[in-house]
Amino acid sequence: MTAPVDFYFDFSSPYGYLAAQRIEGLALAHGREVDWHPVLLGVIFKETGAVPLTQVPIKGDYSRRDMVRSARFHGIDDFRLPSRFPIPTQAAARIVIALKAQDVALSTHVAKALYRAYFADDVDISDPEAAADVAGRAGANRDRVRAAVDDAAVKDALRKEVARAIERGVCGSPFFIVDGEPFWGLDRLPQLERWLGSGPY
Amino acid sequence: MTAPVDFYFDFSSPYGYLAAQRIEGLALAHGREVDWHPVLLGVIFKETGAVPLTQVPIKGDYSRRDMVRSARFHGIDDFRLPSRFPIPTQAAARIVIALKAQDVALSTHVAKALYRAYFADDVDISDPEAAADVAGRAGANRDRVRAAVDDAAVKDALRKEVARAIERGVCGSPFFIVDGEPFWGLDRLPQLERWLGSGPY
Repeated sequence: MTAPVDFYFDFSSPYGYLAAQRIEGLALAHGREVDWHPVLLGVIFKETGAVPLTQVPIKGDYSRRDMVRSARFHGIDDFRLPSRFPIPTQAAARIVIALKAQDVALSTHVAKALYRAYFADDVDISDPEAAADVAGRAGANRDRVRAAVDDAAVKDALRKEVARAIERGVCGSPFFIVDGEPFWGLDRLPQLERWLGSGPY
Repeated sequence: MTAPVDFYFDFSSPYGYLAAQRIEGLALAHGREVDWHPVLLGVIFKETGAVPLTQVPIKGDYSRRDMVRSARFHGIDDFRLPSRFPIPTQAAARIVIALKAQDVALSTHVAKALYRAYFADDVDISDPEAAADVAGRAGANRDRVRAAVDDAAVKDALRKEVARAIERGVCGSPFFIVDGEPFWGLDRLPQLERWLGSGPY
């Protein structure tokens, strides 16, 4: 195994959710693992001046249509835009960051469960209790992850992860870095795949 | 032939240039023609609050890299980011709009020549003289298209084309509409292709 694919995502990012369904299979087909990095688009948007797509005039209508069509295009049947969207994602991100320090495989499993809860089952994972419930059902210690949401050291670890992402040029979600090469967007998976398959082009 | 693919683009849009190299072949493979609509992103950006990608912190660096890689990915060898970028594109757009009223095939041919002049040959087509030279070499009447740039009726026709585009939800470049379905971005060509091939999904 060579270096993993760094996968940056926000739990409130629809295209991040769709990419999360595809990136592992794609990476594994090329002998790579995936390193899951939850980040906060709100912090990144302060740097880039962006606002959530669905809140932009004209683009908002387009993007809601495009998200649903993109899910169908990629054969992902369980996607729907949640009742509350977008949401703050600190709770979910802190849970994953805290777990990652102890058990990477479990943290990835919980990340997928949190994403699915929000985008497939319409659970509002901005609520720390709801997020901890999801993590608990996915195999984490429910009380410990609930405590992690309010843990100053975990908050600090997430802040550092987001700052490091911005330093590395992460400007949206999903965002991938492969051997130093950045790829932004679900729609860059074909370019990423070629890079994994045949190297730099 | 069923209804054409409406192709909206700004002459200063790199992804628009790349899409312009691909859209005709793709449409023709499915029995469709392409209706080329030059628009002004500056006017559209006033509605959506956007700024040119390359001027956005973090995204600027990423997008310059992505534009060049996307050209290579799509096998387009002559693309380079022009010395002056972005540029106002009224002159080029008015020339195409004026020609389109008389000779659609010639207007499409001139549109391609103008795009190539800017993105392959680094000609600053914001200059009405330079744009008219390009159109003249591509087969248009050089003096007549030069006059069209300052023609009040042509200016008004372009304004109406842009207003109509905004009404139809065009929020960027390239932007395609097929049988009422909108597709935004070079990276939506695969989704557009499936739509042309097997209908709504």
